[in-house]
Amino acid sequence: MDVAAELKAGSVAAGARAIRWLDDEDPRGREVLREIFSATGRAHVVGVTGPPGAGKSTLVDMLIAAERCAGRRVAVLAVDPSSPFTGGAVLGDRVRMGRHALDAGVFIRSLATRGERGGLSRSSYDATLVLDAMGYDLILVETVGVGQEEMDIVRLAHSTLIVAVPGLGDEVQALKAGLLEAGDILVLNKADREGYEATARHLELLLHLREGGRAELSWRTPLLRAVAARGEGGEAIVAALDAHRAHLEASGEFARQSARRCEQQFLMLARTAVLAELLARAGPGLLEEVRARRLDPYSAAERVLAPLRAAASP
Amino acid sequence: MDVAAELKAGSVAAGARAIRWLDDEDPRGREVLREIFSATGRAHVVGVTGPPGAGKSTLVDMLIAAERCAGRRVAVLAVDPSSPFTGGAVLGDRVRMGRHALDAGVFIRSLATRGERGGLSRSSYDATLVLDAMGYDLILVETVGVGQEEMDIVRLAHSTLIVAVPGLGDEVQALKAGLLEAGDILVLNKADREGYEATARHLELLLHLREGGRAELSWRTPLLRAVAARGEGGEAIVAALDAHRAHLEASGEFARQSARRCEQQFLMLARTAVLAELLARAGPGLLEEVRARRLDPYSAAERVLAPLRAAASP
Repeated sequence: MDVAAELKAGSVAAGARAIRWLDDEDPRGREVLREIFSATGRAHVVGVTGPPGAGKSTLVDMLIAAERCAGRRVAVLAVDPSSPFTGGAVLGDRVRMGRHALDAGVFIRSLATRGERGGLSRSSYDATLVLDAMGYDLILVETVGVGQEEMDIVRLAHSTLIVAVPGLGDEVQALKAGLLEAGDILVLNKADREGYEATARHLELLLHLREGGRAELSWRTPLLRAVAARGEGGEAIVAALDAHRAHLEASGEFARQSARRCEQQFLMLARTAVLAELLARAGPGLLEEVRARRLDPYSAAERVLAPLRAAASP
Repeated sequence: MDVAAELKAGSVAAGARAIRWLDDEDPRGREVLREIFSATGRAHVVGVTGPPGAGKSTLVDMLIAAERCAGRRVAVLAVDPSSPFTGGAVLGDRVRMGRHALDAGVFIRSLATRGERGGLSRSSYDATLVLDAMGYDLILVETVGVGQEEMDIVRLAHSTLIVAVPGLGDEVQALKAGLLEAGDILVLNKADREGYEATARHLELLLHLREGGRAELSWRTPLLRAVAARGEGGEAIVAALDAHRAHLEASGEFARQSARRCEQQFLMLARTAVLAELLARAGPGLLEEVRARRLDPYSAAERVLAPLRAAASP
């Protein structure tokens, strides 16, 4: 059985298996990736983020339906760094799948952190490649809007959609305002709630302040209105995503960003592997010397580098 | 002439030379560091940051005067990632030195970026070691409050002091609210300005929200009032810094943090040097292969790492 060929033909079972292997760092995952890599780079990767309680899952469900109406195949990758157990995440998938369970054009999968920093970025990137090779037109990467690692994940995306909500308290949302800087499309969900007008004005102001600081501005982040629970606003989001993809393609940025992402993933893997190898070689003694200030960082780094320099060049 | 011995004896000329060598990656800088390293680890390193216009330089000048009254020797490292020329920074030093020019207990130096990412963190760390060995009791590392690299520099410090100001617009300050999370002491400067009460309440709320999310809280970030241009508020900041240092020492965190910083600097230097060596061996073709999706990131990382794995262990 050839998992790579099967997933390229669209097999959900093969895709799910490959994602699990990659997530578990099973060497078979790398094998699959090697075989599918040249078939990737076509999907539009969209990051969806926002504060807890903004209704991201409901909005994503609505967006799936709207994209399906437009004829697209859609995959969702739900990234939850706070959940320590993949079991819970998988159960969540089953519940969420409900509405789209019989639709072969929709694939939903959750990734939960194993605790190591950077691990979730790697898993998300790997899973995105698998979904891309499976032929999904759109890959929605959904994260809770907090922390550095999620910003790294958001940076994986071609387009970033920020979900805000009235009445959560402007201060709380402002605390997450760092996220705004990464936003290409801003959606104010639960727009039938009290406080909608005030929050909309507040967000318009933030967008205005942000754009004030940019010299060359070719894309203006739109602020869209949605009531996802009632299915309102999906078409406008689909249109905005299409416009953003067209904008990226017109400037050549779509391809450049995909290439940059591959390069960064490679450098991240290499850096992590180098560090692991270094720590294994240096042993606890060298680290202890440095921590106790008996050996300075430059000399310690030299000591680690020496065997590599001494090794004959190829 | 022994630069290391001279700077340990407190020579400003020797210290300035060592910092310049390290900044220029002159090998003589590493030599000096090797000789002084065991004499470091005593100074209290304090990061001072906040939005542009908050009056950080004036506040630092006031803080120097207040610390001098308390009998401390003070060094200031002004880090400006936006300034491409060290020349400008050095000129700025001369202007700022004015008030303290004849005081042998004060040393002010600027570092400007050379453009390479991570370079400024390295320079700041190196300069901090030199100032520490020169016997300064307090090292103030002043940065403009934006971006990831500055957060890395702030993390170098034992204590972080955030400078805010009324009337800059709460939204702008909230955009920088990520900084707040790193703050051990919060100073509201220019407190004689209109809008002081509102901004103070806003910041108290942000601090309250932040502390709500922490289970074990042993240090409560104080919000202090200052009018640095009139010399008001310096003593309270000195007292808060002393309290924070005492807090860190009581828990053993002062020594742990210093050790951790040495360890991280070593790992950063080693990883950067080893990866550079490995990438140079691999040649530019490898990156191009990855960008063009002819070689997947895992295989590329494997290929780069092979010489390291093959090299004999020390």
